[in-house]
Amino acid sequence: MKFSCTEYEFAMEMDAKDELSSFRELFVINDPGLIYLDGNSLGRLPVKTAGLIKETVENEWGNRLIRGWNEGWIDLSKRTGAKIARLVGAREDEILVTDTTSVNLFKLAAAALSAQSGRDKIVSDVFNFPSDLYVLQGLKDLFGRNYNVKRIPTKDNTTIAKKDVNRIIDEETAIVCLSHVAFKSAFMYDMAGITETAHSEGALMLWDLCHSAGAVHVDLNGCNVDLAVGCTYKYLNSGPGAPAFLYVRRDLQEKLIQPIWGWFASRDPFEFNSDFNPAEGISRFGTGTPPVISMKAVEPAVDMILEAGINRIRKKSVKQTEYLIYLTEQKLSQYGFRLGSPRKAELRGSHISLQHEKSYSICRALIESPSPAVKVIPDFRTPDNIRLAAAPLYTTYAEIHRAVQRIQAVVEGKIYEKYSCGKLPVT
Amino acid sequence: MKFSCTEYEFAMEMDAKDELSSFRELFVINDPGLIYLDGNSLGRLPVKTAGLIKETVENEWGNRLIRGWNEGWIDLSKRTGAKIARLVGAREDEILVTDTTSVNLFKLAAAALSAQSGRDKIVSDVFNFPSDLYVLQGLKDLFGRNYNVKRIPTKDNTTIAKKDVNRIIDEETAIVCLSHVAFKSAFMYDMAGITETAHSEGALMLWDLCHSAGAVHVDLNGCNVDLAVGCTYKYLNSGPGAPAFLYVRRDLQEKLIQPIWGWFASRDPFEFNSDFNPAEGISRFGTGTPPVISMKAVEPAVDMILEAGINRIRKKSVKQTEYLIYLTEQKLSQYGFRLGSPRKAELRGSHISLQHEKSYSICRALIESPSPAVKVIPDFRTPDNIRLAAAPLYTTYAEIHRAVQRIQAVVEGKIYEKYSCGKLPVT
Repeated sequence: MKFSCTEYEFAMEMDAKDELSSFRELFVINDPGLIYLDGNSLGRLPVKTAGLIKETVENEWGNRLIRGWNEGWIDLSKRTGAKIARLVGAREDEILVTDTTSVNLFKLAAAALSAQSGRDKIVSDVFNFPSDLYVLQGLKDLFGRNYNVKRIPTKDNTTIAKKDVNRIIDEETAIVCLSHVAFKSAFMYDMAGITETAHSEGALMLWDLCHSAGAVHVDLNGCNVDLAVGCTYKYLNSGPGAPAFLYVRRDLQEKLIQPIWGWFASRDPFEFNSDFNPAEGISRFGTGTPPVISMKAVEPAVDMILEAGINRIRKKSVKQTEYLIYLTEQKLSQYGFRLGSPRKAELRGSHISLQHEKSYSICRALIESPSPAVKVIPDFRTPDNIRLAAAPLYTTYAEIHRAVQRIQAVVEGKIYEKYSCGKLPVT
Repeated sequence: MKFSCTEYEFAMEMDAKDELSSFRELFVINDPGLIYLDGNSLGRLPVKTAGLIKETVENEWGNRLIRGWNEGWIDLSKRTGAKIARLVGAREDEILVTDTTSVNLFKLAAAALSAQSGRDKIVSDVFNFPSDLYVLQGLKDLFGRNYNVKRIPTKDNTTIAKKDVNRIIDEETAIVCLSHVAFKSAFMYDMAGITETAHSEGALMLWDLCHSAGAVHVDLNGCNVDLAVGCTYKYLNSGPGAPAFLYVRRDLQEKLIQPIWGWFASRDPFEFNSDFNPAEGISRFGTGTPPVISMKAVEPAVDMILEAGINRIRKKSVKQTEYLIYLTEQKLSQYGFRLGSPRKAELRGSHISLQHEKSYSICRALIESPSPAVKVIPDFRTPDNIRLAAAPLYTTYAEIHRAVQRIQAVVEGKIYEKYSCGKLPVT
């Protein structure tokens, strides 16, 4: 994709022609001066969600009370999972919304390790969420076996080479656990190819979709993926700490045994049998009573993404990140900014990382600007990354243009010098 | 406690004299014809909570977006835990609100089993939540050791004898895991005595407080309890599936290693180190990003209980369950109802179970009454228990009187015969 105009009017023209532009009105956006480029950390609030949560609290809980369980709550995990399934190329009975990403990763990885008992190697990479690596390290500790958690290295700090993946996955590999889109560089793996490599060595493949779901094409069934987890609060716009999801391919559901046997994983929770009898299908990967109010936010947000369609979303996302790269090359590279993401769109998710030695202070200057008209919210990732995300349902080209201009002003005027210490917004 | 009057006026008089009566106005109660006696499954909605959730969704998420994490969300698990600590006799840094009861039980029981590696016995009882038994069975399966999950029997279907507890706990016992108040019969253990017995044999004691917190006196520190878990959606009135809590005595926090190493359990989540370094203190028992919106409901509800005071709550609870037993003896025993709970108040939590061969149909007739003026919501627990709970902050004596009258009418008029099949509200 080529751009040849750095004028603001050009950004406005792209917005005028944008076929997804009407979706922005479906979100709560009260502050027109705030340019929010952190949708990969916490997505914006859909208008419908605010109403649905109010209804859930005030009517379903307040008036219907315990009857709420029979009037929709009990099936929420499966019903919402079925919606997410349509987004990520899974069958409706292969996804469950439950717990947190960490707990779900623990359950699936533990189940996979138990099923692969002759194999001692867990493969991940240096780009994976530290949190995912922690869960894998915890499992190594728990099982008390001689597990070896290998991390595929990067040569350029931005991508992982296929041949390095091939070199590490071998016949001792029990599971391969990778983030489909890396949280720092936005590097995106070839899901089909890596999954095939894992399978060729007899390993089970577990993808983390936190930075993929709702942002890029994911075809779990088409890639014959075994297992996956993901969160719903980033591009799925389901609110702070909204419950996560897990995917288990249908033929594996009866073969794998997850270790946390709560009543929502049992066949007849209300029979109150003393001995655990797992539910059929994906339900056996549940655990305890899910947080209904937080979970209610998932469905309307996913519905909106299904309506927009992942093809249109990805198309706009690529165009927006390309535009962002173009503008940073034109306006920011002279100030020492470097692109910390793959230059090729097909290797990249829906954000870009800009690297700069003053990234931390620049981020704070952007976020804490005293002028309400020029507040930009990106996020900072150690050691020197400023992440800028395109969330195509609500991010405009004009916002991208104004954000880059503001970054330029902050660096040109050395405004960042006033912000060299203190805390930044997180996750 | 003795009662000698079955007249409705007497119930009204008790309400007029009730020093907690003003708390009822702090709950959303729109339907005066609905007598809700299921606060031990899902507590009512506090008025303040409705407002706080609206503010959390519309302002904190909608306007503040990612900044919400720095403006209160990040400490929510600990801050809310500190409030619950005051309710259950723990130090403020010994309780964390996180995950579900099942996940928390899994974490604490797994940590305790790992620490007790020479011992092969897990002790529970026949009264424990099936869900807790499932988690323990799952751990037995996971650890692949020759664990023996022993269940202390009951002789009278209502209580567990101390000598049967003593007989089962021995030097092979790794952990003793019991519900402080049994979910069916409401039998309440002597927490101090049982904990002492466990310790005398070198076992770690893990209490489930789901039916205790907010309803009865709990003194975790005073009883020298090692570990505990509990939910917040019953007597703590925090909404459907609200996050659960866990307690780890201070001196054990650095000794026990829980197996799910998420980023909220790590020392510096935003340093993004690749190797797990556990947080200090209770935080290391956290896991992933907690469901903020659901979790927000906990604090105002716990504040209300702290304001009422557990002494006053327990005093009213005892009086209300005694009154309920008195009325059922006077009005219902002639129809074949039996008390399925301990007759002595000091052995009982805040509900009673009534047993009847038609319990299931009676429950349905009560709940599904076509008359809006006489709807009673108890719950049913297999095989023949109707549970009736006193939630002293909002249950009135008049409601108890009207509920018993309605049960009498349903049985006398054989109204239950129309309700012999179908589904009942749950949890």
